[in-house]
Amino acid sequence: MEIHHRDTVYQDAKKWVYEAGKIIKEQMNNPLNIETKSNANDLVTILDKQTEKFFVEKIKDKYPDHQIIGEEGYGDQPKELDGTIWVIDPIDGTMNFVHQKKFFAISVGILHNGVGEIGLIYDVMNDTLYHVKKGEGAFRDSQQLPLLSRNKQLNEAIVGMNYFWLCENRLVDYQVMQGFIRTVRGARTYGSAALELAYIADGTLDGYLSMRLSPWDVAAGIILLQEVGGIVSNIDGNEWDPLKKSSILASNPALHKTILDIIKKGRK
Amino acid sequence: MEIHHRDTVYQDAKKWVYEAGKIIKEQMNNPLNIETKSNANDLVTILDKQTEKFFVEKIKDKYPDHQIIGEEGYGDQPKELDGTIWVIDPIDGTMNFVHQKKFFAISVGILHNGVGEIGLIYDVMNDTLYHVKKGEGAFRDSQQLPLLSRNKQLNEAIVGMNYFWLCENRLVDYQVMQGFIRTVRGARTYGSAALELAYIADGTLDGYLSMRLSPWDVAAGIILLQEVGGIVSNIDGNEWDPLKKSSILASNPALHKTILDIIKKGRK
Repeated sequence: MEIHHRDTVYQDAKKWVYEAGKIIKEQMNNPLNIETKSNANDLVTILDKQTEKFFVEKIKDKYPDHQIIGEEGYGDQPKELDGTIWVIDPIDGTMNFVHQKKFFAISVGILHNGVGEIGLIYDVMNDTLYHVKKGEGAFRDSQQLPLLSRNKQLNEAIVGMNYFWLCENRLVDYQVMQGFIRTVRGARTYGSAALELAYIADGTLDGYLSMRLSPWDVAAGIILLQEVGGIVSNIDGNEWDPLKKSSILASNPALHKTILDIIKKGRK
Repeated sequence: MEIHHRDTVYQDAKKWVYEAGKIIKEQMNNPLNIETKSNANDLVTILDKQTEKFFVEKIKDKYPDHQIIGEEGYGDQPKELDGTIWVIDPIDGTMNFVHQKKFFAISVGILHNGVGEIGLIYDVMNDTLYHVKKGEGAFRDSQQLPLLSRNKQLNEAIVGMNYFWLCENRLVDYQVMQGFIRTVRGARTYGSAALELAYIADGTLDGYLSMRLSPWDVAAGIILLQEVGGIVSNIDGNEWDPLKKSSILASNPALHKTILDIIKKGRK
């Protein structure tokens, strides 16, 4: 992506993220019309939809040749990674949004010809923006995030994941994961993939595991994390595909192979 | 506790909590001299100790007849609940403090003749104070927290707990807990008991389970939570004892018996 053009796109994306956050904050205390998507725990609110529409209108107006992959389906459904693609989750952590009114984020990743160029994760209630332009550093607000340490042991690591890894599941033997939990220093569950990836980038967490995520959950987080030396793959170590749902293993560079090896032992 | 005297104690406690928070914030970026307590994951820092000493000195100076139960051992070791007892965790969530520099709290509960009278939980990095005087309402900063709903189903609930409930353990059959996890809407792990109890009081969570906690981890949170109608017991439904370590089941009033009944099925 040409660098001056990228700056313009980045500035627009940032402005729209802040605007969308402001609208969410203003409207979130109105009674929400909550729907359920594929199952009772897959919530969606009017504000998820409104916010995605907001982005789609802004982007299509200013950048009619850009494509959009969005959680709520107002974008496009690109089959190839050619050109510029915005990958948007208007509210990542919808259960937190509905239930807690915090711990959710707007996540915007922008790819050009398959390369992650721009990432924005906005923790709306904390008014904290994680942002990156590939090769120019990752930031939390005005603070540049340092490269992640290559000297970290698993027993000093805090890992983000959810409880289903410890339940009977189709991916990994849960007893292997019981061993994993006993090996790490701690495990945390916050309920927003975008924030949990941002938390690896800023050192709050050292790793994150998820069984199945969509491109919009992770695009911005992956671009952010890679900028500070973090490693992302699926749980078999294969490269992330921006057009597909997949499992995710993201971590500090010191731990990625160690965690992969443990999962491999229990992989079904 | 006489009401005017209680107001004075409350004002002092609040002032000291804010002062202690300020000191922690100022000093937390100095290299911390981290020790490990009973095991490698039970961390303690110089600031845990300094902060407890700060409270002990203030309290002993102004209220020489009050007793103190504190995590770091600078207080007393009362055998009875007579008189006024301060139950203090200078930094609840030490692992978060060391590792994340957020998601920790100062927790101060004050009992008089065994009755919880005052509770203060200060989320230092968010500058959010949860506070209560028994019978006068529970607050998050200036906002009074409403009574908790008595109409909530388990499948609409988000529960705070840790991963060891899903591992082989001496308290409860983990397979029963796998069923529990599949029944609730969500589970979260934040790593600070004090904050997780405060989160039930303000509706961020609907329940919280812990296998073994000390009085200082939970005293303030229990006083806060009871004020909004929350229910706290050990995992067998017995009353909390401010002088002993125990398991904790805290929840919204609508869910306490339901969760107890599930645990009972798996209780060893």
